[in-house]
This record gives sequence, C-alpha cells and structure tokens, in this order.
Amino acid sequence: MIIDCHGHYTTAPKALEAWRLKQIAAVNDGTTLPLVSELRISDDDIRETIEANQLRMMRERGHDLTVFSPRAIFMAHHVGDFGVSSTWAAICNEMCHRVSQLFPDNFVPAAMLPQSPGVDPATCIPELERCVREYGAVAVNLNPDPAGGFWNSPPLSDRHWYPLYEKLVEYDLPAMIHVSQSCNACFHTTGAHYLNGDTTAFMQCLDSDLFRDFPTLKFIIPHGGGAVPYHWGRFRGLAQALKKPLLEEHLLNNVFFDTCVYHQPGIDLLTKVIPIDNILFASEMIGAVRGIDPDTGYHFDDTRRYINAAEIEPEARFKIFEGNARRVYSRLDAHLKRQGR
Amino acid sequence: MIIDCHGHYTTAPKALEAWRLKQIAAVNDGTTLPLVSELRISDDDIRETIEANQLRMMRERGHDLTVFSPRAIFMAHHVGDFGVSSTWAAICNEMCHRVSQLFPDNFVPAAMLPQSPGVDPATCIPELERCVREYGAVAVNLNPDPAGGFWNSPPLSDRHWYPLYEKLVEYDLPAMIHVSQSCNACFHTTGAHYLNGDTTAFMQCLDSDLFRDFPTLKFIIPHGGGAVPYHWGRFRGLAQALKKPLLEEHLLNNVFFDTCVYHQPGIDLLTKVIPIDNILFASEMIGAVRGIDPDTGYHFDDTRRYINAAEIEPEARFKIFEGNARRVYSRLDAHLKRQGR
Repeated sequence: MIIDCHGHYTTAPKALEAWRLKQIAAVNDGTTLPLVSELRISDDDIRETIEANQLRMMRERGHDLTVFSPRAIFMAHHVGDFGVSSTWAAICNEMCHRVSQLFPDNFVPAAMLPQSPGVDPATCIPELERCVREYGAVAVNLNPDPAGGFWNSPPLSDRHWYPLYEKLVEYDLPAMIHVSQSCNACFHTTGAHYLNGDTTAFMQCLDSDLFRDFPTLKFIIPHGGGAVPYHWGRFRGLAQALKKPLLEEHLLNNVFFDTCVYHQPGIDLLTKVIPIDNILFASEMIGAVRGIDPDTGYHFDDTRRYINAAEIEPEARFKIFEGNARRVYSRLDAHLKRQGR
Repeated sequence: MIIDCHGHYTTAPKALEAWRLKQIAAVNDGTTLPLVSELRISDDDIRETIEANQLRMMRERGHDLTVFSPRAIFMAHHVGDFGVSSTWAAICNEMCHRVSQLFPDNFVPAAMLPQSPGVDPATCIPELERCVREYGAVAVNLNPDPAGGFWNSPPLSDRHWYPLYEKLVEYDLPAMIHVSQSCNACFHTTGAHYLNGDTTAFMQCLDSDLFRDFPTLKFIIPHGGGAVPYHWGRFRGLAQALKKPLLEEHLLNNVFFDTCVYHQPGIDLLTKVIPIDNILFASEMIGAVRGIDPDTGYHFDDTRRYINAAEIEPEARFKIFEGNARRVYSRLDAHLKRQGR
C-alpha cells in the first residue's frame, strides 16, 4: 500500500471558502456571524472536487490512501476568537469526514483543532474527542503558532500544551505540527513560514525533555522536517552542546519526518540522514507547489517518484510507503485492519 | 587560498562582554551608560584570544584567511535605541579592525551595522562608510530582524532598506544576511532563528523584484542557505507559481550561499543543487556548534573536510574556496592584490 500521510482538502467546494469569507467579514465588522446552516455542500459537490482532483492524481500516481485534513492555510487560527475557530474547525473537520465516508478506500480523516491565540489548548479537547469518536480521525494537526507568524505562544515543550498531549497520548493519536497562514509580511506562508515552523518545532523538542514527560507522544514534522535533515550535523552538535542524549534516543522515538521535499536530491538526503523508521511518505499534493518541474516533466510534488528512485532497499521503501504509517498512526492501522487491509 | 567568508570574533576578551553587560544594565535601569573609554583591551589581549583560538584552528585546518565580523549573537540590535546600537557597533567593528591589523595575513574585517528596531536603516550608513574607509571592511552583516525574533521590520524587498542598498551598491559591498540573538522563547537562537532567518530572507528575495532594482546588489545567505537548498525544488516551484523567472536568472546573480552545513550529506546536497558559482566556503568556526562529531572524530564545523570529500571537480573546489569569494567580495580581492596575493 501507498499511504500519503499529508493531504489537505485544498480543493473543497467554493461554497466553503465563501462561507468562511462571510465569517471573517463578520468578525472584522463586528456584525452577526453566519450560521453553519447557511453552508450547503452536497455529497455530489464533494465527490466532484475529489474525483477531479485528489483522487484522479492519487490514481495517476498509484497512491492508495491519504490521511486527509482541512486545508492548512485556511485553518487561520488567528481569525476571531475561540468560538469562531471552533465553528470553523467543526465545519472543516466534517468536510474531511464526509470525504472519508464517500471514499472509504482512499481517505481517512485527520482533524484540525479550534486553536485560538492566547487560549488554553485544553479548549481543543472536545473537538479532538468528537473527531476521534464520531469521525474516526487518526491524527490531528497542531499549530505551534496560532497567531500566524507572530509566534507569541509558548514553545511546544511548555506545560501550556500538556493537557492536549495527555489527550493525544490517551488516544495514541499523532500530531502533525503544521502552521497555517502567515499574517506577518516577513514570512511567505508556504515559502518561509511552513519551513520555519518545522525547524522551530523540531528545535523546541530538542531543547527540552518533552518526550521524557510523554514517552509515547508522536509528532510528525512535515515538509521533510523543514531545515532539519539538511542541517542534521548542526542539530547533532547542538544536542551535544546542550548535554542532551543522542538524537536517536532523545527525539527519534517520537519525531517523524514526512517526504514533502520536492526534488530528488532532497529526498536522497532525507533517506540517507534520517533513520528509515522515522520517514513517512507524503506529498501534500495539490498544495503549496502545484506546477510541473520543467527539468523532469513531472509535478514537483510527485514525491513517490523520488522515493522510488532513492537508493534504498525494498524493505525501506515499504516502511516509508506503508509500514511506518501503520506504526505511527495506530488508529489508521486498526481502521485498515477492520477494512481487511 | 582558502578563504572562510563567515567568521565572528566569538572569543573576544572578556572585558568586551563585561562592558556590554554594563551597557545593557544601564539601558534596563535607565542609569548612566558606560563610557567607551572605560573599555580597555590591549593588543596583547587580542593577540592571545586570536592565537589560541581562531588562528590556531585556521592553521590546523589550513584556512588562509577569514572575513571576520563581530559576534553575531552579540549584535543584539534589540537592546536600547539607535545610540546604544551605534556605540556598540563602533566598539565591535573596531575590535575586528584591530584583529585585521594585528594579523593582516589572516583576517579581513566585515562590519556589523548599528541597526535598531523601528529606526530607518539609512542611519547605519555613517558607520558603514567609516568601516569601509577607515577599516577596509569588505562586507557588512545585515540583520533582517533587528527586533530579535519578533520580525516586525519590513521584508528585505521593501523600500525601507533601499537607502542602505544604494550605499552597498556604491561600494560594491556584499551583505551577509545574518540575524542575531532571539528574544522570542519560540526560537532557539542558533538552532531555529538563524536557519529561519536564512530561509525567510531568501523567500523575501524570491517573492519580489529586488534585484531588478539593484542588479549588482549581493547577498550572502549563511548557514548553507537555511532550508533553501534542501527544498530547492519547492523554491523552483514557488518561483514558477509566482510567475518569476527561473531562479538562476531571478536570484542567482545576486544571492550566494555559504558552506556552514555541518555534515557531509548536507554539503553534498549543497554542491549538487546550487550552482558552484554561488557557493562560498565558510565554517563559522568557534561558533554555534563547537563540538567534535563522535561519528567522524572531527569538529562538526570543520567544513573544509566536507568540501574536500564532495564529488566535485578541482576547479569547483577552487571556486568555492577562493575564486567565488574574490568575485563576490571585490574589495577583498583588491585588498589581497595589494598584498600581492
């Protein structure tokens, strides 16, 4: 099986964006917020957007299954207050749930959280529980910077986040650490903020003993780990200077990297530097980089090609494509087994 | 020749730090600032710190020359106001000047700028001119985030910075884009903020037409370009999506990457992905990562070994070690020629 652990519903029906824009306008103007019931999206609307986009490309590329979460840039936790984020998260999570119901062989949901700047992350627990129990969510996306490029929340190693981690551990639910839209003019969202978020999150883990407190907590650092694998020597050296254990022991029981690195040399480095057990196949396709690489004639985000071409053993390839995902996303594995897969 | 384009005076005599701590305390307490004349550092003090540290290691590693600037983490432009930064920059620049006078064969100065959050960068021009004219500075370090992790200055592509660029162009002086200490608990200074600064600066250039306005402006992105070479496919794809020219044309006449990447696979990727003409040898030694890699038995920051072991032609190695630095740092080349080198 080929499991893509990082897909977002970037192609959701336009009505979803239109509703969100109404909500944002109401927040900005202080007028009445739109009702959830004003948003009407039919199963056919969903089928169309998926069949013409994600599913078509999954078939072309031979991906079997995508862990599917709401569009990252649209999480925009900085908008409004907790109530606004809650309503928006509930809507987006329901959309991904519906996709997974309509295409049960191809999509499994992961949840966004109703984070809001300055609000206790424990407030996200009810939505998290709802998504696990009602929707069968197999993971969550956790935004380390709900302010959107202003980075005024405590680091991920702070006790601020612990109530959420306790729930993640209880459900054995991995968290992909994924920022959202940047509101800071310094940071281009997909060209700087995403990668910075990845590097920052990893270093927050390194410079702490978070996983001593939560030995079974699992973080996926997306976009190939930001700058981390390229600077693996730097991070090994920093761990040494900070008198931390070797990274294998200190972080690699808990931290995993996806393969959203959009060229062959990047994937070659990733698979050479990071232990294979810590690499999860992903493309984030129909995402940040949708074009065709003129050098190869294939989509930049067609990461399966790079994994196929990497100089690794078949067993390593199996782990990256399927084995590791089943291990890290234990609820996904259970779900697949219930489906007889 | 082996030219290390990225060295800081991290080992300056303790009296320098003591003076700075007095200055910071006075800023915090609103008391009288210390006088510059209170700081007394003899030539012997300088000789000792250099001979026992940078020069010793340069000899061990076979580096001939270091472009030497004040300690990056100590620039701390967020401290106090423009006056405070000015005094501090003048002191630090003089220190590097004195190093270059005492060891003219081995060190050439680069200047830090007296930046201050919210202050017009044009105010840095007098110090820049002084360092070029009186000290023979061959480059400057430009901090894109003088607030120290709060990123509230405009992006480097903004006209805010143009007066400074005009002066850089006039002197044909390259700028290394280098952040300083992070005051934001989210960002570990050397493990996150530095790399994020590099990635952010590159993307600010990519998402603009800065080099159409300044076709001869030259930026060095340190620390191997942050996350950029590892994600070169992503950046090529983003340039395409943003309808920019190919990166070679759009940025690579103006943007250069140093080799401060502290393991072999990182340097292998850098030299494979980035055109050789855009790579400048550097180690930032006695810097962020001072330890010995237990896997190799050599210092993590002994980057010369990685360049030597990279699968590149001798001509490429010459360019990385010397040729490119002479081209990018034209004042360094002129200086060396005056020395008969």
